[in-house]
Amino acid sequence: MTYCVGLLLNEGIVLLSDTRTNAGLDNIATYRKTFLFEEPGECVIAIMAAGSLSVTQTTLARLREAMDHPEANDETSILQAPTLLKVAQIVGNMLAQVRLEIDEKLGALHQGASALMIVAGQRRGGAMRLFLIYPEGNFIEATEDTPFLQIGEHKYGKPILDRVVCPETSLADAQKAVLLSVDSTLRSNLSVGMPLDLTVIPRDACRVTEQRRIEAGDPQFRAMSEAWSKVLRDGFDRIVI
Amino acid sequence: MTYCVGLLLNEGIVLLSDTRTNAGLDNIATYRKTFLFEEPGECVIAIMAAGSLSVTQTTLARLREAMDHPEANDETSILQAPTLLKVAQIVGNMLAQVRLEIDEKLGALHQGASALMIVAGQRRGGAMRLFLIYPEGNFIEATEDTPFLQIGEHKYGKPILDRVVCPETSLADAQKAVLLSVDSTLRSNLSVGMPLDLTVIPRDACRVTEQRRIEAGDPQFRAMSEAWSKVLRDGFDRIVI
Repeated sequence: MTYCVGLLLNEGIVLLSDTRTNAGLDNIATYRKTFLFEEPGECVIAIMAAGSLSVTQTTLARLREAMDHPEANDETSILQAPTLLKVAQIVGNMLAQVRLEIDEKLGALHQGASALMIVAGQRRGGAMRLFLIYPEGNFIEATEDTPFLQIGEHKYGKPILDRVVCPETSLADAQKAVLLSVDSTLRSNLSVGMPLDLTVIPRDACRVTEQRRIEAGDPQFRAMSEAWSKVLRDGFDRIVI
Repeated sequence: MTYCVGLLLNEGIVLLSDTRTNAGLDNIATYRKTFLFEEPGECVIAIMAAGSLSVTQTTLARLREAMDHPEANDETSILQAPTLLKVAQIVGNMLAQVRLEIDEKLGALHQGASALMIVAGQRRGGAMRLFLIYPEGNFIEATEDTPFLQIGEHKYGKPILDRVVCPETSLADAQKAVLLSVDSTLRSNLSVGMPLDLTVIPRDACRVTEQRRIEAGDPQFRAMSEAWSKVLRDGFDRIVI
């Protein structure tokens, strides 16, 4: 499995993904699941992917091919698309097409392949947006009422987001929230694993200002994780029923 | 859906279940999911159920019928079974049989029905045990390493249990833990709903010493829930990354 979460806040976007993939339980590997495309100051797009690796890799490879094509235009290249809505449509169509192709191949074995993506970003002068793309290519969008979107193994890490995230959350607090959310997931589910990829895109900057890989032994992450455990245990002790 | 959780501790057993059932999203009802059978001081058995209501109700009805049958014996009646292992076997066999029957009926509509159960209790002089029964009738058991078992919508409420529950946890703390666990689930998932049923069976008492229904407006539960939210938010503010 996978865990990816994206927050759309007044101050900008914060994204976090893990890197664990598994084919069965005994074939575990590390793959990046956050992909960045930018013309700094002009346009920034981040894509996070969960699901069948063959679907997500092929989708991203074709999106890149379309961008690099000599006849790339605003209908085919996500970097030339005039709005983030158009980006979501291009990604959605590509994902749906790839999924269908691979699904057909696997049909012979009575198996299927599927994937979801989170698409986030901003083009200069345009709105900052965050989408969740379904395997069929349709999508939903983060709003003020629901400022975060998750894909993959999302349940363990949802309670903390439900409690602390709102559009007014600062970028610093948002990073803390997604790191604590993934920390709960890592503790409870083996199919989500370190290292983590953290991305910050401030509103109207149209560039990624922070992209950090957090490795398994990262002392800062471990200290935060231990401090959070202490908060929970001490708080638990203080609660009276 | 449903959320049921059982803890097997040095001091005894604590069980919690919600009461929400739904057929689709627009047909929601309240049903008890914890069922108690006891001869106080001699034998106590608790069964919690998650899954298709037709499967769980029929299974329980037949278990009761078998108990009340004039020729009930230690092979057919869970209250006469000599050990809790035998109880788990009787419940498992009945669940598997009922599930198969109902599944066959539904097969014509290309649908299926399934259910899981948690069986807990003790017979005088015997060991206190906690089992999770799968739809096929096989089962697993709580141990010192894994002192809790969950069925239904279990992921939201697992992180808090992972962090605070061990065999040494007191019965009072265990009640707090399961209530906080279900509180996280209630906040994040609509298919789990109040009221709640809380059951406490101290070790070697061979009787239920506390059985409490916690209604939606319960002031004690609400105070605990709010105190926990405050712990999380204050703790979140204090964490430094």
